[in-house]
Amino acid sequence: DFLSAIDEVTPAFGVAKEELEQVVQNGIIHFDKVIDEILRSGQLFVDQVRVSTRTPLVSLLLHGPPGSGKTALAATIARASDYPFMKLVSPDDMVGFSESQKVAAISKVFADSYKSPLSVIVVDSLERLLDFTPIGPRFSNSVLQSLLVLFAKRPPKGRRLLVIATTSLRPVLTDLGLSESFDSEIRVPPVSSLRSLEAVLDEVDLVKNPRERQQTMQMLQQAGFGSDETGLNIGIKKLLSMIEMARQEPENVGERLVTSLMGL
Amino acid sequence: DFLSAIDEVTPAFGVAKEELEQVVQNGIIHFDKVIDEILRSGQLFVDQVRVSTRTPLVSLLLHGPPGSGKTALAATIARASDYPFMKLVSPDDMVGFSESQKVAAISKVFADSYKSPLSVIVVDSLERLLDFTPIGPRFSNSVLQSLLVLFAKRPPKGRRLLVIATTSLRPVLTDLGLSESFDSEIRVPPVSSLRSLEAVLDEVDLVKNPRERQQTMQMLQQAGFGSDETGLNIGIKKLLSMIEMARQEPENVGERLVTSLMGL
Amino acid sequence: DFLSAIDEVTPAFGVAKEELEQVVQNGIIHFDKVIDEILRSGQLFVDQVRVSTRTPLVSLLLHGPPGSGKTALAATIARASDYPFMKLVSPDDMVGFSESQKVAAISKVFADSYKSPLSVIVVDSLERLLDFTPIGPRFSNSVLQSLLVLFAKRPPKGRRLLVIATTSLRPVLTDLGLSESFDSEIRVPPVSSLRSLEAVLDEVDLVKNPRERQQTMQMLQQAGFGSDETGLNIGIKKLLSMIEMARQEPENVGERLVTSLMGL
Amino acid sequence: DFLSAIDEVTPAFGVAKEELEQVVQNGIIHFDKVIDEILRSGQLFVDQVRVSTRTPLVSLLLHGPPGSGKTALAATIARASDYPFMKLVSPDDMVGFSESQKVAAISKVFADSYKSPLSVIVVDSLERLLDFTPIGPRFSNSVLQSLLVLFAKRPPKGRRLLVIATTSLRPVLTDLGLSESFDSEIRVPPVSSLRSLEAVLDEVDLVKNPRERQQTMQMLQQAGFGSDETGLNIGIKKLLSMIEMARQEPENVGERLVTSLMGL
Amino acid sequence: DFLSAIDEVTPAFGVAKEELEQVVQNGIIHFDKVIDEILRSGQLFVDQVRVSTRTPLVSLLLHGPPGSGKTALAATIARASDYPFMKLVSPDDMVGFSESQKVAAISKVFADSYKSPLSVIVVDSLERLLDFTPIGPRFSNSVLQSLLVLFAKRPPKGRRLLVIATTSLRPVLTDLGLSESFDSEIRVPPVSSLRSLEAVLDEVDLVKNPRERQQTMQMLQQAGFGSDETGLNIGIKKLLSMIEMARQEPENVGERLVTSLMGL
Amino acid sequence: DFLSAIDEVTPAFGVAKEELEQVVQNGIIHFDKVIDEILRSGQLFVDQVRVSTRTPLVSLLLHGPPGSGKTALAATIARASDYPFMKLVSPDDMVGFSESQKVAAISKVFADSYKSPLSVIVVDSLERLLDFTPIGPRFSNSVLQSLLVLFAKRPPKGRRLLVIATTSLRPVLTDLGLSESFDSEIRVPPVSSLRSLEAVLDEVDLVKNPRERQQTMQMLQQAGFGSDETGLNIGIKKLLSMIEMARQEPENVGERLVTSLMGL
Ligand SMILES: Nc1ncnc2c1ncn2[C@@H]1O[C@H](COP(=O)(O)OP(=O)(O)OP(=O)(O)O)[C@@H](O)[C@H]1O
Ligand SMILES: Nc1ncnc2c1ncn2[C@@H]1O[C@H](COP(=O)(O)OP(=O)(O)OP(=O)(O)O)[C@@H](O)[C@H]1O
Ligand SMILES: Nc1ncnc2c1ncn2[C@@H]1O[C@H](COP(=O)(O)OP(=O)(O)OP(=O)(O)O)[C@@H](O)[C@H]1O
Ligand SMILES: Nc1ncnc2c1ncn2[C@@H]1O[C@H](COP(=O)(O)OP(=O)(O)OP(=O)(O)O)[C@@H](O)[C@H]1O
Ligand SMILES: Nc1ncnc2c1ncn2[C@@H]1O[C@H](COP(=O)(O)OP(=O)(O)OP(=O)(O)O)[C@@H](O)[C@H]1O
Ligand SMILES: Nc1ncnc2c1ncn2[C@@H]1O[C@H](COP(=O)(O)OP(=O)(O)OP(=O)(O)O)[C@@H](O)[C@H]1O
Ligand SMILES: [Mg+2]
Ligand SMILES: [Mg+2]
Ligand SMILES: [Mg+2]
Ligand SMILES: [Mg+2]
Ligand SMILES: [Mg+2]
Ligand SMILES: [Mg+2]
Repeated sequence: DFLSAIDEVTPAFGVAKEELEQVVQNGIIHFDKVIDEILRSGQLFVDQVRVSTRTPLVSLLLHGPPGSGKTALAATIARASDYPFMKLVSPDDMVGFSESQKVAAISKVFADSYKSPLSVIVVDSLERLLDFTPIGPRFSNSVLQSLLVLFAKRPPKGRRLLVIATTSLRPVLTDLGLSESFDSEIRVPPVSSLRSLEAVLDEVDLVKNPRERQQTMQMLQQAGFGSDETGLNIGIKKLLSMIEMARQEPENVGERLVTSLMGL
Repeated sequence: DFLSAIDEVTPAFGVAKEELEQVVQNGIIHFDKVIDEILRSGQLFVDQVRVSTRTPLVSLLLHGPPGSGKTALAATIARASDYPFMKLVSPDDMVGFSESQKVAAISKVFADSYKSPLSVIVVDSLERLLDFTPIGPRFSNSVLQSLLVLFAKRPPKGRRLLVIATTSLRPVLTDLGLSESFDSEIRVPPVSSLRSLEAVLDEVDLVKNPRERQQTMQMLQQAGFGSDETGLNIGIKKLLSMIEMARQEPENVGERLVTSLMGL
Repeated sequence: DFLSAIDEVTPAFGVAKEELEQVVQNGIIHFDKVIDEILRSGQLFVDQVRVSTRTPLVSLLLHGPPGSGKTALAATIARASDYPFMKLVSPDDMVGFSESQKVAAISKVFADSYKSPLSVIVVDSLERLLDFTPIGPRFSNSVLQSLLVLFAKRPPKGRRLLVIATTSLRPVLTDLGLSESFDSEIRVPPVSSLRSLEAVLDEVDLVKNPRERQQTMQMLQQAGFGSDETGLNIGIKKLLSMIEMARQEPENVGERLVTSLMGL
Repeated sequence: DFLSAIDEVTPAFGVAKEELEQVVQNGIIHFDKVIDEILRSGQLFVDQVRVSTRTPLVSLLLHGPPGSGKTALAATIARASDYPFMKLVSPDDMVGFSESQKVAAISKVFADSYKSPLSVIVVDSLERLLDFTPIGPRFSNSVLQSLLVLFAKRPPKGRRLLVIATTSLRPVLTDLGLSESFDSEIRVPPVSSLRSLEAVLDEVDLVKNPRERQQTMQMLQQAGFGSDETGLNIGIKKLLSMIEMARQEPENVGERLVTSLMGL
Repeated sequence: DFLSAIDEVTPAFGVAKEELEQVVQNGIIHFDKVIDEILRSGQLFVDQVRVSTRTPLVSLLLHGPPGSGKTALAATIARASDYPFMKLVSPDDMVGFSESQKVAAISKVFADSYKSPLSVIVVDSLERLLDFTPIGPRFSNSVLQSLLVLFAKRPPKGRRLLVIATTSLRPVLTDLGLSESFDSEIRVPPVSSLRSLEAVLDEVDLVKNPRERQQTMQMLQQAGFGSDETGLNIGIKKLLSMIEMARQEPENVGERLVTSLMGL
Repeated sequence: DFLSAIDEVTPAFGVAKEELEQVVQNGIIHFDKVIDEILRSGQLFVDQVRVSTRTPLVSLLLHGPPGSGKTALAATIARASDYPFMKLVSPDDMVGFSESQKVAAISKVFADSYKSPLSVIVVDSLERLLDFTPIGPRFSNSVLQSLLVLFAKRPPKGRRLLVIATTSLRPVLTDLGLSESFDSEIRVPPVSSLRSLEAVLDEVDLVKNPRERQQTMQMLQQAGFGSDETGLNIGIKKLLSMIEMARQEPENVGERLVTSLMGL
């Protein structure tokens, strides 16, 4: 009754795909070649799960600073797999859940995936799923224990599963013993070079006038952006937000952006 | 069914507006130009949310010492937006709520806002919503986790949301990882110069007799108010309260106020 | 329907007045002029709340060592106000209450007060309401959070409220962030000078025979009571209790009292 | 309706008296004059409560090392009062009670006492009522808070109450802030002089043969019992238990007792 | 109605006796004279409870390293008493019990014993009854408090009770204040001399061939068993287990045993 | 009614066997003679339980680094016993269980085993059953206490039980006092020599071309795998996973594997 199982999970498909699209609202800007490498690596894991018989379970961790684009990249890789079962597990859908409700929701998704021959699950923002706070520290041990088991539990015979998790607190995961659950880890970097920043500005058409554009870049260079000394860098998500704020004062866009960036 | 959604939230509108008015009971005294700057900054964010398509969610933190006027300013900015959905989330309405009741009440407001095309939510006094106590420290991790998610969760397509939060314990928010949730932060200062103090006294007509007025100012100067050395300063809220106490002894108003201020 | 509100709270009036009387069972002995000053200060706050429109909420903290008479003085001030709503919130009535029952009982009193145009609430023995223990330390965070909000929450338009709280653990309140909730603080001192002690003894007619009286005072002086070096002092409540014990041995009253006092 | 109140509590009287008798199963041996002093002091407090109008509530703490006879002495004082209401609050009757059941049971006794014009309550073994453990330390804060309030709460007009509590952990009570609740404290010492020990042995007829008796005393002296250096001492309760064990070997009673005592 | 009480508890008798037998499955090997002394001491306490009127409650603690035979010896002493009420309180029967279920089960046994004129209760493995873990440390305070009370609570008039408890964590009991509950303590030692070991081997017929036997003993001596320097020793329980493992390789019994013992 | 008991447990047999097979999905590769020794040791314990009457309960702990093959080896030993009762207790089947549900599930398996004359239970991954986290540390004390009792509790007369537990956190078990529950411990090592690695590669046919195979081995040697200095080693489970990843780039298999291994 494999077919009936397929039937059963089908209704959830469309929804998941939409969800995976929604978290990439501003698209993927290829501001650095590392972005392409990340996407290609993801593709390789997608292929491995599809073909290898010895590794029916592969798990991958995308980690990087806040707003570096982890969720968008994980969702992009998952959506591109076009597996029959694709699902996003996100803290956004669990506000106010008790620990046991979270565990139930998460393990429901894994249990559902075991009914499909080929599945991908994006487990987004582990620190939020864990209710992690550095003070204490506090976290949900029952969510942690469930993830430790689910990330290591083989799907039943004939089923294959790719797990893509994201976090901006990788050192914490290591302390919690969760890091070593993953078969592989990929780092998602922030925008940290002048060239990358320029690529983003161009992509979003912030400064159209060529001279103004040049001035803006010079200001950024003088401010030390992208130099090793200042170590200035910024997640793509926050950068896009600053750009929009700057747009509020059309006559003064470049300067305002530089001020914001320097305020980091 | 956008219209029906609008209908649904309408009844709550008036109430919210009243609530936003009530917390500004003593008006806004423009004792320093920074007050105008704060209100103008707020206006800019209101505009950005109204027009930008790339940033449907903007969050703002007003922080400053106790009684510096954070709640009044946040409410003033929100009310001035005239968005179709305006709401105040305040610990005043949650006395005796359990953690989960708080989480439910807060997320209800956010869920309601997602039905309006344009919304502003004032989340007042984060430390109280979090039940924060420095001893321990203790706080509600479930409220914290909910805020961390709600402050970062994008509204559905076509909806826009401005969040204005206030706190007098910004360093704590940083420790809790809540600071970095905000797109921008604005500091609300206390009354700390002699000129500002004078402006307040004039506004509330404390000392009508010109000579008495001059004497009072001299006493304050001699006591060192507004000098860098003493570092004396006071929130506008407590200042207004001291002024009322001083009024109790009409013959002695100036002296009594100075004594109170020196007792800080 | 202001009148109906008044009606509603009326039945509770008499009771409250009796309660406020009962905690002053041994009257107020004016053993020092500071006692009169405290009562006069209290009167001033009572007047301010009655007349000022800008400060509809005023809160006052009476603090001092155990048994110094805080409860009796707070009740005396409140009763003298003759406000239409007068209420005592006391741990004596909450033995065995759960945290949430305490919160409910306390906020009920505040909610009731909001129905009266003019109210005074004595919140007695904050450390006991908070279930405070120095070991740990342990305390009820939910009671604390409720008090923090209730002590700062303005009554609705047209209502005015005076809050008089008492504590013998003021430093703890400061650590808990509760001190800064109060508009003003008044210290209630113990009996610490020979003259004050004498005034009390006279008032309660302990030693009627003039010679014996003189001897007793001499013994006390020799023992160092009231001198800066010994720093001997005692709360009026415990002093009255020691006096009663001493009375048990009529032939030896003076000596027995001195022995007790020296044993402190 | 004072009479009906009396009626109501009557049925519990007999029981209480029996309970107070049962804990003195081995009588009071007057091995030292301090025992008589303790009983006389108790008598004085009993009298004070009976006659003084200014101190309707008096509380007394009997403290001393384990097995020193605190419970027996407290019960003896209470029983001798012959007050219309006499009650023993003992952890023996609360095995397996939850914290709130303990609080309920304890405050029930106090509430009952308020119905009698004259009452005495023995609150036995505070450390056990508090579920105190030095590791942690752990204890029931709700029992503690209830005792703090009940030990300080005045009975209603016209009622008088004597509270006699016992503990073998007085320093802990001080840390918990419970010591200062008491109007007076009495120390119950262990048997620590050779003469006291001899008095006990004579009273229980351990060694009837005069020579054997003398030998036993000599052995004890040589072993250093009662000397300041060894600091050897023992609670009367454990001493009586050792004596019974020694009796098991009739031919060897003295030696066996000495061995036991030296093993302390 | 003493007879009916007897009737009531009768059905439980047989069971208890069987239980007490079952924990001595491998009998008592008299490998050292200390074993006989322990059993004789136990007998003395059994006699004392039977005859003394002043000590209706006697409690005894058997302590020693893991597997030293505490349970077997306690059960042997209890069974030999032939009291009308004999009961084993064992963690084996309480797997998965909540704290309050444990307390209920334990106090039920004590309550039952109070119905019999003469009772013995073996309270086995206090550390397990307490759910003790060194990390934290964690333990059930409610079980601890119940034991503290039950071990000290006198049975009703005319009833007598002997309590025999066992533990392999005596230092912990001291920290918890439980040690001083006992009237007496007996140490159960491990097998620690060559002669004791030899006695055990002979008793269980491990090495029948005399030469092989001699070789084995030589190997053990060379390995340093029983010498003060190595301090090697082993509980009788684990020793019997090692002997059975060694038996698995019949041709090599002696060598295998020595290897196991050296691995300690 | 032994037969009926047998009947009762029969239906669970097949299932358990399948479960024991499923966790050895990739077979046992005999990459080192230690693997054979482990299996032989297991066999000896299986035999001992079958024949010895003095040791009806034997418990064994397999410990080693993550992914070293503990579960597969424990299951292999258990399955080979061919006892009438064979069961796997695994955290995989307890995701989201409360502590008491876990305890119930575990003790149910032990209770079931007591109905069979001969039983083996594999208790897999103790750290997960205990919900252990190094931060705190946190763990389920009720699961711990249940295991401490169940691992030491003798089966009823005529029943025999072999317990095989696994863990990758043996030092933690020692801290928790769980280590000393076991009659014996066996260490499962990772792949740590070049020869072992080679054996695995050959077994799974990773590099078929002889020259390529030689190159790969040379690269590994140069990278220092298997040398004492680098101390490089890897669990068989993770090694098999890396091999599958390497297979994704057929033209580059050897290099990719070396890179992965060096990344450890
Ligand atoms: N190269 C890129 N990689 C990822 N996101 C990009 C890229 N270019 C543009 N974006 C946009 O940037 C945003 C990245 O936000 P995203 O939520 O993925 O970041 P995040 O790292 O998950 O943040 P957080 O740490 O808050 O979880 C998305 O709106 C996405 O459309
Ligand atoms: N320039 C001003 N800014 C803010 N409030 C002002 C100003 N001038 C007068 N006010 C009055 O001062 C009071 C400020 O109180 P408000 O509750 O806003 O302070 P707050 O900083 O939120 O205090 P808290 O730290 O207790 O939350 C209000 O009554 C407001 O009407
Ligand atoms: N000048 C005085 N001030 C206050 N109380 C007085 C004075 N003179 C006599 N008394 C009597 O002394 C007693 C003071 O007790 P009260 O309970 O008010 O002390 P307290 O400081 O509240 O004690 P606690 O610290 O235990 O709460 C009352 O019985 C009161 O009638
Ligand atoms: N002088 C005495 N004082 C008190 N008890 C005595 C005295 N002489 C004999 N006894 C007997 O000694 C025993 C004292 O035990 P009691 O339970 O009162 O001690 P305790 O100090 O309360 O012990 P614990 O510290 O365990 O609570 C009683 O049996 C009592 O009859
Ligand atoms: N001299 C002896 N004393 C005690 N037990 C003995 C003796 N000789 C043989 N035995 C056997 O040794 C075993 C002792 O195990 P027992 O359970 O009593 O040890 P224990 O100290 O209670 O262990 P644990 O510390 O695990 O509770 C029993 O099977 C008993 O029959
Ligand atoms: N010699 C071997 N020993 C054990 N497992 C082997 C061996 N050779 C191949 N394998 C395979 O390696 C895998 C070992 O995984 P297993 O789950 O047993 O490791 P583990 O040590 O229990 O891991 P974890 O620490 O995650 O619990 C299994 O798929 C097994 O089939
Ligand atoms: Mg993200
Ligand atoms: Mg505010
Ligand atoms: Mg008071
Ligand atoms: Mg006692
Ligand atoms: Mg035992
Ligand atoms: Mg495993």
